[in-house]
Amino acid sequence: MMDMENKTGNIAVVGMGPGRESMMTDEALQALDSADVIVGYTVYLDLLGERFAGKEFLSTPMKQETERCRLAFEEAAKGKSVAMVCSGDAGIYGMASLMFEMKEELGADGTGIRVIPGITAASSGAAALGAPLNHDFCVISLSDLLTPWELIEKRLRAAAAGDFAIAIYNPSSKKRHDYLQKACDILLETAEPERACGYVRSIGRDGEEYHTCTLRELRDAEVDMFTTVFVGNSQSRIIDGRLVTPRGYKL
Amino acid sequence: MMDMENKTGNIAVVGMGPGRESMMTDEALQALDSADVIVGYTVYLDLLGERFAGKEFLSTPMKQETERCRLAFEEAAKGKSVAMVCSGDAGIYGMASLMFEMKEELGADGTGIRVIPGITAASSGAAALGAPLNHDFCVISLSDLLTPWELIEKRLRAAAAGDFAIAIYNPSSKKRHDYLQKACDILLETAEPERACGYVRSIGRDGEEYHTCTLRELRDAEVDMFTTVFVGNSQSRIIDGRLVTPRGYKL
Repeated sequence: MMDMENKTGNIAVVGMGPGRESMMTDEALQALDSADVIVGYTVYLDLLGERFAGKEFLSTPMKQETERCRLAFEEAAKGKSVAMVCSGDAGIYGMASLMFEMKEELGADGTGIRVIPGITAASSGAAALGAPLNHDFCVISLSDLLTPWELIEKRLRAAAAGDFAIAIYNPSSKKRHDYLQKACDILLETAEPERACGYVRSIGRDGEEYHTCTLRELRDAEVDMFTTVFVGNSQSRIIDGRLVTPRGYKL
Repeated sequence: MMDMENKTGNIAVVGMGPGRESMMTDEALQALDSADVIVGYTVYLDLLGERFAGKEFLSTPMKQETERCRLAFEEAAKGKSVAMVCSGDAGIYGMASLMFEMKEELGADGTGIRVIPGITAASSGAAALGAPLNHDFCVISLSDLLTPWELIEKRLRAAAAGDFAIAIYNPSSKKRHDYLQKACDILLETAEPERACGYVRSIGRDGEEYHTCTLRELRDAEVDMFTTVFVGNSQSRIIDGRLVTPRGYKL
């Protein structure tokens, strides 16, 4: 078992889940409680609310992730215990990998990094929608800020070829309004148009809503950056209004 | 926001994470607290320990999953609020999909099903190992109890073709002692032997241990049914003894 304490001079990279305290683990809450300083994107910090109101918070604007990680190491070097918060899971499109890379870059040998997992949108969105990921699945982000679009296309094709259920993160943004459409067109090269799909908006937050649809309908669904999309595998079905991917048990 | 109460006659399918209370969400704990009866595989029930000592527990042996789900509906039909516990996440190789199928099978229209996510081994194992799933990834189970081995092979090939990081569940059992070897051989058809990999045993429990290795070494690693295996993508590296898959940020 790991030590629960967030030691001085060390950094905990903490997954806070969808954004409400009741969906964080006690381990994550304890890591924040015991931190001298909490570093994170302001929107996530705001979600944490009253419990951590007395804490020292440090932030950088969106898209300044490397600066944010550097800041965490600077604070740790002062002997503070630092918590770096990420939405969802710290190690799924979160800051965990960048923190290890930054440690190497800075030669910060004395700074320990501990990753504390959280509920990622694949899990929380799936739960809201039913059980779309209840067999082998892929998680793919459509954001091409850090990944060439060609690689994203390749992965979508591979996911369809393997008949995986798929969770799609970052399906859309202002600049990428047609990316989900492009992704569905790629999946439709091999998957049937009637493939069972769904999407969840504002998971675990006020206004959470989920929708089921076919792959053809998904192509034209209105999604935003707060939406997580789920594509079933060839065995998935809509049962009682929920998206369900069977595990294979005989009834 | 969803109602936190586990209402009478309804069923909550609850992901309990790796097995210790501090890695469960408060939402999951509340669902168990408010249940009249908790149904689950005995090993998971034992892990829950003292907190739920006064509760009515019902169980069936391993491999009797459909009977266990049927039992949950029988209890709900008596007007009880039921919690069905699963290790990890309820919707990732858990009981969530079977519960929806059983509801349809039984015509149990009056019984509501609510899925409460938990930390799955992909998340908790990744956190222990470093950040192996910090880019697009696949989750594949090597258990062929419910899935034809040919389909598992197809998915392994697709995962390698898409250059996904991979989390492998159920890499071995007494009857399937060479399955990880077979899986590695398939991945080695396209992935380089030096590909960065790792595995974690007894995640979040006493005796937790993690190892990093190459894909060639992974082929001969000693794994058991309590081990989760991680295969990096082509960009993954071992940094400071941890398995790290970069997100793509420039340092």
